[in-house]
Amino acid sequence: MWQLFQFPLCPFSRKVRLALGEKGVGYGLIRESPWEQRDEFIDMNPAAQTPVMRDPDTGMTLIDSSAICEYFEETIDKAPLIPGQAPDRAEVRRLVAWFDQIFYREVVAPLLYERMEKRLVHRKSPDAAQLREAMKRANTHLDYVDYLIDHRRWLGGPLFSLADLAGAAHISVADYLGGIDWRGHRSTREWYAGLKSRPSFRPLLGERMEVIAPPDHYDKVDF
Amino acid sequence: MWQLFQFPLCPFSRKVRLALGEKGVGYGLIRESPWEQRDEFIDMNPAAQTPVMRDPDTGMTLIDSSAICEYFEETIDKAPLIPGQAPDRAEVRRLVAWFDQIFYREVVAPLLYERMEKRLVHRKSPDAAQLREAMKRANTHLDYVDYLIDHRRWLGGPLFSLADLAGAAHISVADYLGGIDWRGHRSTREWYAGLKSRPSFRPLLGERMEVIAPPDHYDKVDF
Repeated sequence: MWQLFQFPLCPFSRKVRLALGEKGVGYGLIRESPWEQRDEFIDMNPAAQTPVMRDPDTGMTLIDSSAICEYFEETIDKAPLIPGQAPDRAEVRRLVAWFDQIFYREVVAPLLYERMEKRLVHRKSPDAAQLREAMKRANTHLDYVDYLIDHRRWLGGPLFSLADLAGAAHISVADYLGGIDWRGHRSTREWYAGLKSRPSFRPLLGERMEVIAPPDHYDKVDF
Repeated sequence: MWQLFQFPLCPFSRKVRLALGEKGVGYGLIRESPWEQRDEFIDMNPAAQTPVMRDPDTGMTLIDSSAICEYFEETIDKAPLIPGQAPDRAEVRRLVAWFDQIFYREVVAPLLYERMEKRLVHRKSPDAAQLREAMKRANTHLDYVDYLIDHRRWLGGPLFSLADLAGAAHISVADYLGGIDWRGHRSTREWYAGLKSRPSFRPLLGERMEVIAPPDHYDKVDF
């Protein structure tokens, strides 16, 4: 069975886990804290980032969340996550990249740094101004997600796709860290409630990162 | 004919241009300076990043360098750039992501900021300490590229691939900005000299970014 090296609040690992869940691929979790720079982990992945997937029977290692998702999209027919023709697939990949790069850099990464890394690694308190800035950017970005949902059945177009999973993965980490103000984002909230109720999402919502508690609404499908 | 919105030192646009060149896809260049945040450009791409490709006849827009490369890989059979079986393809995508994320963030982005953006936008001089740090990281990363080249025919494995083009794209921008010390990287230098002599690379080497001159060796195949 595949091993997935990850930590509970890694949005890229969450995206991969949601994809594996939709496709019915079994895997075991291995806890990895990339900020500890464990030698064996860096030997496996010089980029020192989660997620990494490893098949202990064959020794095959898959690295980078997009490469991992493309790999399972190519090898597992069930539940196509980059569906449609080439232009539809380009739109799905654009949105995945938007969440993985823009939304991550401007919202999730500063929240993770202020609320998780500072506490776990540097034993410091979060900077309230930085948190406010990240929440403001989250608000602007959720306006764009609202706009997409108002014009399409799913985020990437008429079909459910990896864009929905990438969005849900990043938003869920931001939400865990108290970075999302849901008022004023009814469209995104309804879409996200639907995502939360999928069987692929349930295991993630039950997990906790040590010393950091999510807000009360975090794991509720009705919120 | 496709229009490519880009600026001469955008490594992601360079990667796309090399891929289009290998595949024989024609395109016209449209100069876009993302730091100017032009309204029409942001309307087209809310991420406000180059490259963007647009077909003016159909109105089709492709956004994000990886989505663009995957699109042409799916639609143009000539010169496969993500070749082989699923595990080989995963390795190519891992290395493309390594250049696009790690090498870009730690080497290319600080060089672009210090040497280009500070000059063009902020009218300031570069910070010598930041430049030194970026060059030190470039050196470490080229050690890894040396290691790959010493163990494989091409960066991603036995076949020429998008990993080579992504590597050449990022390294060429770092080299233009004086960030690469080639001493001690003979393997990477020989591989890069081969890339430079490809017809797809020639047009890029001849272009200049206003007010910033590259080092003398920059456009020479023998360097």
